[in-house]
Amino acid sequence: MIVDPATTPRADVYRAMIRSILPRPIAWVSSVASDGVTNLAPFSFFTAISADPPTLCFAPGRRSIDGSKKDTLRNIEETGEFVVNIVGEDTAEKMNETATDYPSDISEFEEVGLTPAPSVVVKAPRVAESPVNFECRKYDIISIGPDGPGGAALVIGEIVRIHVAERVLREGKIDPALLRPIGRLGGMEYTRTRDRFVMTRKKFENP
Amino acid sequence: MIVDPATTPRADVYRAMIRSILPRPIAWVSSVASDGVTNLAPFSFFTAISADPPTLCFAPGRRSIDGSKKDTLRNIEETGEFVVNIVGEDTAEKMNETATDYPSDISEFEEVGLTPAPSVVVKAPRVAESPVNFECRKYDIISIGPDGPGGAALVIGEIVRIHVAERVLREGKIDPALLRPIGRLGGMEYTRTRDRFVMTRKKFENP
Repeated sequence: MIVDPATTPRADVYRAMIRSILPRPIAWVSSVASDGVTNLAPFSFFTAISADPPTLCFAPGRRSIDGSKKDTLRNIEETGEFVVNIVGEDTAEKMNETATDYPSDISEFEEVGLTPAPSVVVKAPRVAESPVNFECRKYDIISIGPDGPGGAALVIGEIVRIHVAERVLREGKIDPALLRPIGRLGGMEYTRTRDRFVMTRKKFENP
Repeated sequence: MIVDPATTPRADVYRAMIRSILPRPIAWVSSVASDGVTNLAPFSFFTAISADPPTLCFAPGRRSIDGSKKDTLRNIEETGEFVVNIVGEDTAEKMNETATDYPSDISEFEEVGLTPAPSVVVKAPRVAESPVNFECRKYDIISIGPDGPGGAALVIGEIVRIHVAERVLREGKIDPALLRPIGRLGGMEYTRTRDRFVMTRKKFENP
């Protein structure tokens, strides 16, 4: 099957992407509006970029219903700050509850029952229940596509503090068996990461 | 544990990122140099961005040994084109073999034994063994960090064709049980995605 995006409905192109770019890590992003209301929402178009400076990015799409900006993007545009919280198996259900599109004046922290913990550098709170939190300052925001339905923004953040809970550390390093991260698949599916295997890399040797 | 990137060795910051931003999908990127040598290499700093236009991005870091650009980035800068191939369990070993840093005049397709298949729009070949291929044209390249060790580029591609093998389709949709994508973890670890579960999203109902 060959799909030409120029002649294929956007929903079908999107489906091909989200059903093959897998498994996706989840950025559980906390932010705060200029009026002080905290926000928390998950995004799976998310990746690390570089270590020097340490940067990551995620891509909040416009709301499909009316093309408006989601609270997370609006808050980051207003304040230039956010926190990316990591999701383990133990917080999967709560994360999913924060995917509901609540009105802007409702805080997902209160609605879902999660604990906001103060950050060191940024105003946005961390999710205390998350094992790892990345405090970020806006590095850049790149708008892609229409200023309406189908449009998206690529938010690049510079990491200014990393918090790691002792309970996921073994010999000073984060242990995936303790972190138990989950990945996003297509549709409403997720994957655990317990089914691990190792492949070592070879160095090139001049023959 | 709180990590301040400003006062922490780059390698430690990097380790905290790659051990917590998990599981990561793998962009197996094929490209072609201006002299015609094909290249194939995996990158796990990779995500979809938007569907309209359909875009994705990945972040090739500079070579740690000397800070030079990897062949993939150099080829995309020269030609403006590449293909992102999706990795399933069946191509995991071959993908890992292409992670070896071969000299620029060696094609990983030949070295590892993979079949280059012609693309429709771009000059870079697809990996015939991959179940899904995204033909991409350069949309933007954003340089981040130093022009040397530690530096990285964020390559944003516009998807101009999507190829999906019939063998991973069920009722016209990509089935994860047939695609069997693998995810990158920290160190040399990977995860399978067979341990799936479903969480449905609630819509907000005005109380």
